[in-house]
Formats: sequence, C-alpha cells, structure tokens
Amino acid sequence: MADPSLDVIAIGNAIVDVMAPAEEAAIARLGLNKGGMTLVDTTRAQELYDAMGPAKEISGGSAANTLAGLAALGAKCAFIGQVADDQLGEVFAHDIRAGGIHFATPVRAGDPPTARCLIFVTPDGERTMNTFLGASQFLPPAALDERLIASAAILYLEGYLWDPEEPRSAMRRAIAVAREAGRKVAFTASESFVIERHGDDFRALIEEGQIDLLFVNEGELATLTGESDFEAGVAKVASKVAVLVATRSAKGAIAVAHGERAEVPAEPIGRVVDTTGAGDLFAAGFLSGYVVGRPLAECLRRGAICACEIISHYGARPEADLRKLVAERLS
Amino acid sequence: MADPSLDVIAIGNAIVDVMAPAEEAAIARLGLNKGGMTLVDTTRAQELYDAMGPAKEISGGSAANTLAGLAALGAKCAFIGQVADDQLGEVFAHDIRAGGIHFATPVRAGDPPTARCLIFVTPDGERTMNTFLGASQFLPPAALDERLIASAAILYLEGYLWDPEEPRSAMRRAIAVAREAGRKVAFTASESFVIERHGDDFRALIEEGQIDLLFVNEGELATLTGESDFEAGVAKVASKVAVLVATRSAKGAIAVAHGERAEVPAEPIGRVVDTTGAGDLFAAGFLSGYVVGRPLAECLRRGAICACEIISHYGARPEADLRKLVAERLS
Repeated sequence: MADPSLDVIAIGNAIVDVMAPAEEAAIARLGLNKGGMTLVDTTRAQELYDAMGPAKEISGGSAANTLAGLAALGAKCAFIGQVADDQLGEVFAHDIRAGGIHFATPVRAGDPPTARCLIFVTPDGERTMNTFLGASQFLPPAALDERLIASAAILYLEGYLWDPEEPRSAMRRAIAVAREAGRKVAFTASESFVIERHGDDFRALIEEGQIDLLFVNEGELATLTGESDFEAGVAKVASKVAVLVATRSAKGAIAVAHGERAEVPAEPIGRVVDTTGAGDLFAAGFLSGYVVGRPLAECLRRGAICACEIISHYGARPEADLRKLVAERLS
Repeated sequence: MADPSLDVIAIGNAIVDVMAPAEEAAIARLGLNKGGMTLVDTTRAQELYDAMGPAKEISGGSAANTLAGLAALGAKCAFIGQVADDQLGEVFAHDIRAGGIHFATPVRAGDPPTARCLIFVTPDGERTMNTFLGASQFLPPAALDERLIASAAILYLEGYLWDPEEPRSAMRRAIAVAREAGRKVAFTASESFVIERHGDDFRALIEEGQIDLLFVNEGELATLTGESDFEAGVAKVASKVAVLVATRSAKGAIAVAHGERAEVPAEPIGRVVDTTGAGDLFAAGFLSGYVVGRPLAECLRRGAICACEIISHYGARPEADLRKLVAERLS
C-alpha cells in the first residue's frame, strides 16, 4: 500500500449558506426548530427566504467547512460533493478551490439547483438552519474518484448526507474503497435527527468496525447510544471505534483513543456572534493534529481553538489565519 | 403637485459584491487599480475570480447601498435597476426588498447575467473594485416607473450608471420626469473615471440647474472642476447646485447649501476593516437628515456616523441598527 498523497478526502453536502440576523420572535413566528437543522422543500425555502432579512452568501456544508479549516491548517485535502450548473454552484466550487482543496466532482445539469441553507442567526449567536438540499442529494456513486479516495489517509463522511439515497450508496462504496486501501474512515454524526432516521445503519457500521474516528456532540451521542448520561454513552461507544471525539459546547470536549482519554475546556471567547460551523471546525482542528500524529490532548486543543475562531464571526468558513492562531494559542 | 409619497427613489447598478481579503502583493501582481473601480469584461472577471481567495457574496451597488442605509434610517425608498433572471439577481432583489425598499424593475431574460463586483480588500481596509456590469448596463428607459419617480421627493442618480448608453437615456428621462413633477434631483459622481468620460454631460447638467444635490469626494471634485485645490473646486460648483456635499475621507466632509457652509470631522473609528460603501453610506446618512429638514451640520454628522459604521465591517450594507446608532451618537 502506497503512502497516502492526501491527508483527508471528504464527502459532503455542497451548500451555500444564506445567512441573516433574526430576532427570537421571528424564530417562533416562522415555526423554526431553533438551534437545529431542518430539511425544507422548494416552497418552504421560498417562504423562509421571503421572511428573511438582508442576507450574506457564504459557502458552507459541514464536511466542506471542516476541509476549509484543515486546508488552512496545512493539510492536503479533497472534496466530493454535488453542485448544479448554476451561479451558487460556481460560488461553492470557487470558494472550496480557492481554499486549496481539490474539487473535481462533475457539475449536475438541470434541476434542482445547488443546495442552500437558510440560516437565521439570533442575538444569542445561535444558528437555526433550514436546508434545501437541491443537487446535493443526487451525488451518484459514479461521481466518486476511487483512486483519489484510496490515496487519502482519512475518508471523512458527513452524516447529513446519509439521508438521501444516492449519496448514501456513494458513501457506502467510498467506505469499501477506503478500507480496501487500508485507509481510515471518519464519520461525523451531524445532527440527532439523522441518527433518529439512520441510527441502525450507524450502529451497524460501528459494530462492524467500519468507523475509525467518530465525531459526535452530546445530543447525538445520547441519540446514538440511547444513554441520556454522557459518560454512559461514551462508555458504550469508545471501545468500538479507534477514536471517539465528543463535543459538549461550552463544556468543552473529550476524546477517547485506544483506551486513552483526554479532555479540553472550551476556549475563552468574547462574544458568540454565530455558532454556525462550530462542530465542523472543531473536527478540522482535531484532525489537523491527528494527521500529523500529535497527542490526543493537543488534537482536542486545536479543535477548541478553531471552533472558537468560527463562532466569533458570521459564517462557517474561517476568517483568521488559523495556522498562526493555533501556533500562538498552543505555545 | 401632490405631496411626495416616497422620500427617495434611486436609479443605480444592481450588483452583488463578491468580496475577499487580499494581500498587497496580489493587487500588484494582478495589475489592479488599488482603491479604484475598474470595469471588467467576462474574461477578465473570470481571471480575477480564479485568482481570488474564498469570498462572501453581499448585495452592493452604490445607489442601492445608499437606499439600504436610508431605509434603515426610516426613509421610504424605491429602487430602479436591472438584474438578470438568475440566482444573483434573486439575491440582489431579495436583499433590497428585505430592507424595506420597493423594487419592481422587471428582470431581464437571457445573457448577460446579473452584475457582480469582485472586491479585493487589503489589510489596510482599502477596497479595490472590479465590476462586471452584466445585465445592469441594459436598464432601458421603458423600465422606468414614471409615476413612482414623480411621487418621490428626491430622485437619486448614480454616476457609475451614466457610462452605459441605455441607463444614461433612462436617467435623462428620469430627470425630466422628476423636474416636471417639481421634485429634487440628487447626483453622486461615483468615481473620477466616470467624470473623465462624461464630465461634459455632468457640467452641462449642473450649469442647466438640473442637479439640486451633488455628492462628490475630493478627487471627483477636482476632476469635475479642473481645480486641484479643494476650496477652489468647492467655490466653482457650490453656487450652481442647491446643495453640495463633498467628502474627504479621514479629513471629514463639508456641505454648502444656499450659501451656508457646514463641516464635520470623520467619526473616530477603531479599525478600518473594509472601506466599501463609505461614500454610499455617507450619502445615506446625509439624506436621512435632509429629507426631514434637519440642519446642514446634523445632516453631515449623520453621514459621518453611517460611513463609520460601514467601514467597521465587511460589505457595503449596514449591519448595525443605524437608527439607534445615529440617535445615540447625535445625543
């Protein structure tokens, strides 16, 4: 088996975030699931967009955000995801390539358009996401570049994308390709509702030893394990994956790897402007250390530093020089 | 003549800004006109976009930015500008309507696409703009809602749009409609290169008394009057327009109205993040006072406060609650 030429290849939703500030009252009036992610169809997306204030468009997508952070930290990355042949697709492709990430998934002609996520950001910094999946849900297994997947040390998969059928098939195929090549598979659970719908799949993958690195937050861990107690949930999963990373928002995060456990508090932050991408960038920071063999505690620390950067501004793509920031904070 | 039902109606470019940070070296390497606005064709736009880092899309357009500020300050506004039938057109239309501004110019089918401005923001906060005018330059005189123009106290025109032929005809027609209805005409010179190309038109309009309020910056005033000395330039124009507003960046701004002169220093600001829209928001602040009959000095002060807000963040549309900000700073 050849040495990997890429650090991380990710499969995820190719989404442009449409973000606007919103008052608490608007969240209630529009019947939104505050703090969560809800899938919306064309009609509901239009209704919500019409109700939204003046917005900004910033590329997003959970795994793509993670790669943006990883690439900024010096990792060699590639992305696989489906955009349509339209302006938002061009925006997504530009932004990910401009971040130094290889992206060559063929665009998809015709309807539906490129995915977008309508994000209402309340004064407390919490983001409420409403995702129109569009072209993203039609990523076909045929779009996978299997040689590229086999060339990456880590295959990183986004749980959100397990929901639609074609990308789920594509991800199952990608897992087989990566394992065949002796690579590691990382999986982020993304959101409790995904686990509610596909928990059996995820538990089976974990039991079968198909997942090497698992990223969850507290709520997702509870949904996945059926344990409302955090430590009980950790105990149930930690022995079945090589690395478990569990984030707990303001309570910090823990990681368990081969029986070793490390913890990190949340980084101190002035004001939480927008939590969009906090988990994604935590994963980016963690993996940036993991791929170069740093100790578990440092990997967590890097995750916390990157998550802290992303919640200090609008949007889920890093603005600060992450490499410099991590170097400064770690020293 | 009926009382105006609108405070300001503006005709301007309907543009989405594509903004990214850039190093000084990139400005030189790409041969950009630092601090200025350059028109670019499809090929050059693609070349510059390819060279640009990960970006954000935020609605822009000089006059549209001014209206966004004015509407946020409570003025009743309408916008006339040409978008194409595409996603960036939808973004522009959404953002301006979401700001409470009436916008009903019919979209234009087919090529070219909606205008975009590729903006490179250097570490000093200076913006270097490269505008692909696209659909914006094809605003036809037939798209004018003449009854709406006649119903607004002020018709506000963007100099940038004097360059392409169809919008120039539309603006000439709009001036006639406004004057016929006994309304005021405001004109922003926009950029020295526009005056270099169309200075004779502008000087003729001024001589003929077609312009009631003229907004210029120091450089534009010099180009317009041929006077390198600021005061000589002011002296040459001030007697020919009812209100002259001349901004001088960090040196503040002056206004002369019917022989009365007022001055204001620049507002103190922590860090200049991005100067995009500074002039546009100065005009917004000034007009917000003018339309409600505030003293000249207060109009200038409002302009300075709004300009200060816009340069403290990315993008040319206000983020803070301008009404609250102006009320606080004026008190």
